[in-house]
Amino acid sequence: MNSFNTIFNIQVFGASHGPLVGVTLDHVPAGIAIQTSDFLPDLARRKGGQKGGTPRVEEDIPQIVSGYFNGYTTGAPLTILFENNNTRSEAYTKQRDVYRPGHADFVAHEKFGGFEDYRGGGHFSARLTTGIVAAGVIAKKILGSITFEALVTEAGGLQDIDAALEKAIAAKDSIGGIVSCTIKHVPVGWGEPFWDSIESRMAQAMFSIPAVKGIEFGSGFAAARMMGSEHNDAYLDINGHTRTNHAGGIIGGISNGNDLSFRLAFKPTASTPKEQQTFNQATQQVEPFSVKGRHDLCVALRAPVIVEAMAALVLVDLMMLHKARI
Amino acid sequence: MNSFNTIFNIQVFGASHGPLVGVTLDHVPAGIAIQTSDFLPDLARRKGGQKGGTPRVEEDIPQIVSGYFNGYTTGAPLTILFENNNTRSEAYTKQRDVYRPGHADFVAHEKFGGFEDYRGGGHFSARLTTGIVAAGVIAKKILGSITFEALVTEAGGLQDIDAALEKAIAAKDSIGGIVSCTIKHVPVGWGEPFWDSIESRMAQAMFSIPAVKGIEFGSGFAAARMMGSEHNDAYLDINGHTRTNHAGGIIGGISNGNDLSFRLAFKPTASTPKEQQTFNQATQQVEPFSVKGRHDLCVALRAPVIVEAMAALVLVDLMMLHKARI
Amino acid sequence: MNSFNTIFNIQVFGASHGPLVGVTLDHVPAGIAIQTSDFLPDLARRKGGQKGGTPRVEEDIPQIVSGYFNGYTTGAPLTILFENNNTRSEAYTKQRDVYRPGHADFVAHEKFGGFEDYRGGGHFSARLTTGIVAAGVIAKKILGSITFEALVTEAGGLQDIDAALEKAIAAKDSIGGIVSCTIKHVPVGWGEPFWDSIESRMAQAMFSIPAVKGIEFGSGFAAARMMGSEHNDAYLDINGHTRTNHAGGIIGGISNGNDLSFRLAFKPTASTPKEQQTFNQATQQVEPFSVKGRHDLCVALRAPVIVEAMAALVLVDLMMLHKARI
Amino acid sequence: MNSFNTIFNIQVFGASHGPLVGVTLDHVPAGIAIQTSDFLPDLARRKGGQKGGTPRVEEDIPQIVSGYFNGYTTGAPLTILFENNNTRSEAYTKQRDVYRPGHADFVAHEKFGGFEDYRGGGHFSARLTTGIVAAGVIAKKILGSITFEALVTEAGGLQDIDAALEKAIAAKDSIGGIVSCTIKHVPVGWGEPFWDSIESRMAQAMFSIPAVKGIEFGSGFAAARMMGSEHNDAYLDINGHTRTNHAGGIIGGISNGNDLSFRLAFKPTASTPKEQQTFNQATQQVEPFSVKGRHDLCVALRAPVIVEAMAALVLVDLMMLHKARI
Repeated sequence: MNSFNTIFNIQVFGASHGPLVGVTLDHVPAGIAIQTSDFLPDLARRKGGQKGGTPRVEEDIPQIVSGYFNGYTTGAPLTILFENNNTRSEAYTKQRDVYRPGHADFVAHEKFGGFEDYRGGGHFSARLTTGIVAAGVIAKKILGSITFEALVTEAGGLQDIDAALEKAIAAKDSIGGIVSCTIKHVPVGWGEPFWDSIESRMAQAMFSIPAVKGIEFGSGFAAARMMGSEHNDAYLDINGHTRTNHAGGIIGGISNGNDLSFRLAFKPTASTPKEQQTFNQATQQVEPFSVKGRHDLCVALRAPVIVEAMAALVLVDLMMLHKARI
Repeated sequence: MNSFNTIFNIQVFGASHGPLVGVTLDHVPAGIAIQTSDFLPDLARRKGGQKGGTPRVEEDIPQIVSGYFNGYTTGAPLTILFENNNTRSEAYTKQRDVYRPGHADFVAHEKFGGFEDYRGGGHFSARLTTGIVAAGVIAKKILGSITFEALVTEAGGLQDIDAALEKAIAAKDSIGGIVSCTIKHVPVGWGEPFWDSIESRMAQAMFSIPAVKGIEFGSGFAAARMMGSEHNDAYLDINGHTRTNHAGGIIGGISNGNDLSFRLAFKPTASTPKEQQTFNQATQQVEPFSVKGRHDLCVALRAPVIVEAMAALVLVDLMMLHKARI
Repeated sequence: MNSFNTIFNIQVFGASHGPLVGVTLDHVPAGIAIQTSDFLPDLARRKGGQKGGTPRVEEDIPQIVSGYFNGYTTGAPLTILFENNNTRSEAYTKQRDVYRPGHADFVAHEKFGGFEDYRGGGHFSARLTTGIVAAGVIAKKILGSITFEALVTEAGGLQDIDAALEKAIAAKDSIGGIVSCTIKHVPVGWGEPFWDSIESRMAQAMFSIPAVKGIEFGSGFAAARMMGSEHNDAYLDINGHTRTNHAGGIIGGISNGNDLSFRLAFKPTASTPKEQQTFNQATQQVEPFSVKGRHDLCVALRAPVIVEAMAALVLVDLMMLHKARI
Repeated sequence: MNSFNTIFNIQVFGASHGPLVGVTLDHVPAGIAIQTSDFLPDLARRKGGQKGGTPRVEEDIPQIVSGYFNGYTTGAPLTILFENNNTRSEAYTKQRDVYRPGHADFVAHEKFGGFEDYRGGGHFSARLTTGIVAAGVIAKKILGSITFEALVTEAGGLQDIDAALEKAIAAKDSIGGIVSCTIKHVPVGWGEPFWDSIESRMAQAMFSIPAVKGIEFGSGFAAARMMGSEHNDAYLDINGHTRTNHAGGIIGGISNGNDLSFRLAFKPTASTPKEQQTFNQATQQVEPFSVKGRHDLCVALRAPVIVEAMAALVLVDLMMLHKARI
């Protein structure tokens, strides 16, 4: 399904080369002051155009067409649209004989019987995350003093991101990366047992970002090699502050008042500039193939603000669930 | 919330030291043949008692009290109960001055205002996974020829699990581990865009297993260090078979016909035999603390069958969602 | 599905002649004081045994097996079980050649392929409402000062209910009835737009009570014959009190601070003592048929407490949804 | 919440005097042929302009901006927008001292703290049903041979609708009405136990249509005055055909193969031309008040196509739920 969250529901729609992409947020509190300029910093962070980024750059002017009146949210569903103006679809028609490796072309064709919008990844495109970033801006406003900081901490195996991009350009190839996220000031007690644990819900959200292939909270995979006495975060006081934070701020699925922290693995951009050998339906043979279209060298670079938005959307919902029963 | 899945809904209930734990499965197809013996192999895999395992061993006889008639499922909600007989709650009462490090005691107390059932972890206990394993048996039956194989591939940093347990016993400490899961014969096209991608839903399910702190699909975190030409799985034929399987059988969130594969990081058992320094509410000081109760040295050891059950529950739901619109 | 409500989720399970019926309530606030005796008055109202009632009388002792500790709710799912002890299933086996008119036998057989538990209506039985009444007791506690009063205001077309039963007994037939419900002290502003309006959610709940075939709020069907100036409830003050209450306390789907009021139509008990002409599969002919089993003459008589329970369950959820965003 | 259905999810957004109203449908099957002209007949039925109708007439050109490519649905969310061009908002600003009787003004103000879009009813306006009618067109296509016929069978207490409107015009007042709906060719077995019974789900949907205050299935309220032997629909054959159809095609909440039938009560238009006495916040007194804006004399007249759309949306979802488990 294309909607998420139990109460603070978000629905995405649109496609890479359709007329627009958009998002509808349900159960938004009334009376939140919003103006267009509020969205611009986060949208700018998401936008392409930087070094190693796709040459496709959209203006990304948010149009709030529902749930907004006289500068405030009204409590009705909040719908935000973004026009797609800078599309070049010709390349995608030519390519249809070859399912691009690492892309959803093949599975989309099988799942939707050939009726999928294949241009630029269609509904699978990262273009859809524009609306999610806008929704994240609203979510952050609702969360008030909670702060989000997601950063690319590694690209192509290097911590020097510029050097990583140079390496990719030299190799005429794309690279992956790691995004680390820290969230401060989450109150104790958010998250619900089992399937609505913070980890469960954060993970569900994060894996809906294209190219994410792994997530770990706190010490994560390293925890599997620790001893219990080393991993356990001993309490320092009655407020739950701990000496270490191997748990990433989450115990039993529930926030414990320490910083939330998690890391995400992004695979390299599927559209590598390098020639690939793959199956061609026209010739029925494995043949050389070069990808068309305009792409990022490292999709992780644009991801931090999307990660923050997803995290904020999850936290508003968990806050609402928590408030609902007290 | 304590329920999961859109259609093939599972609800868990009970607590570690309450009268029972159980599970209700909704929207079960009618006419599935079931007998008690069908559950025993998977329940045996989950049960404690092996080397390094907790001395608490329950009989785990499943009682199917709803949705079952004359040997078959009826289509009504399927409820399975497991009595708790082998509980020793005294230890937990004594311990209440200290929130056990690595356990949900503190957050549960804050979230539920002191009304939580604190005995043996209460509703946060891994005891709850008994019902999930039983539900997984039903899910596997529905999935027919799809096969599941989850294994502990590493414990305490070692691939030799016996050696790892010896090391833990010698150190008087607990250890973490890695569980790897491979699922074969999933048809092409299961999974839905965004929040119902296979990765999103599997991750949501897996993080509801106590002690899981990380998940990666296919190459996972290693993918972040690959080049695109290296990570992309090139197609070999028109059926979507690929030369490599770095994607773990999932592209764009949707199954591509190759084996599903993922790995999970389990933290070390929070209840380590080793003395810990942590905050004591009675004395208002950080003091030495020794955990009481009966526990596993490595919780990952009992986890594989739970991982399989969770994966099967997710796949039935995604199969149903897929079938619903064709 | 067998679950209901967005946050304060209720799941029912069991069958008329299975080992038990039960209910699981999710997202229950922690710290609600409960004892068995709290359930008895409402359970007694639901129970058979009165004039014109079924001779099947269960003891209906609620067993709280989850979410309860030391006299209080814990915040974990609250599961309540009721054993079925007083069942006589033989009659139902004999009857299988004839789908009983007015019963779910035929549709259950078609829907579940013959695997349904046909004894006593199986999962379609009003026996399932025992758990709902118990859940309603919890919901009423949560709602505090809100009061519920549902009454049978008409049976067999008469306002004198005893006279109606005499008429039915004389005619050797069953009769229908009307239940009217008034709920006082609902705050202004509960209910959400569209599909979560109070009317939408109340109606959804009420039509899940067996035998309900109509619902109307406030003036209901009579409103269709009024003029606007007659139906509109003019405001008397700034608090929303109105001169009349034709709207039944609900405007735009949202509570307006006046009493909630609605009426329900119950069809006559399908199991009439009177001989009926219907299709017999064994003979392949329409033939005389007499119903077996033990039944009420007028199911509406036991319904008021079920109606109150359903209403309370709906209102807790709408209260929680309302609280979640303020 | 502003979304509905378990699988075939519909979300509405927009406001009467905002830039647009719209709808997003999720889980739409791919490959459904659609063109703009497919929507026009049903949209024309919903549109104002006829005798006794509001002078506000929008062009209602559907813009499909997501989920549509080359003439077919793609399987991605289907979003349809309708611009609001013919709005006159001035009247509504002037009116704010008086909460209009029978309208949501008061409850919206209380619920949303004064931030609601009050112009023309805002998000509570029947304008929102434009998107629902468009969604209904898609739903009807999916349902194939199932036919829908909703009709105004009574207005102002008269079966002659023209005479009813003349009466209203003469009285300078608004009138209510009854809409009857018959749905043919629904297969046996759709609908789920309890809260997803056909009656539960239909009722939930219908009460989200503005002005609906009652619903009854089959004989409905009249059933409450029948005897069981009279109400029961005796079977004529093995396929479930019945001699009578007092049940309205639904037994145990599940379709039995006979025609579905139900009736809806619509209250009179709240905006009556007649002067009303109600509370004025500016003067703090009950005073004469005349409604401004453009309105229908009888909202029931435009409702049948909305009723059909709602019914179709419900049935697609129940069909999908049914298919999911067989």
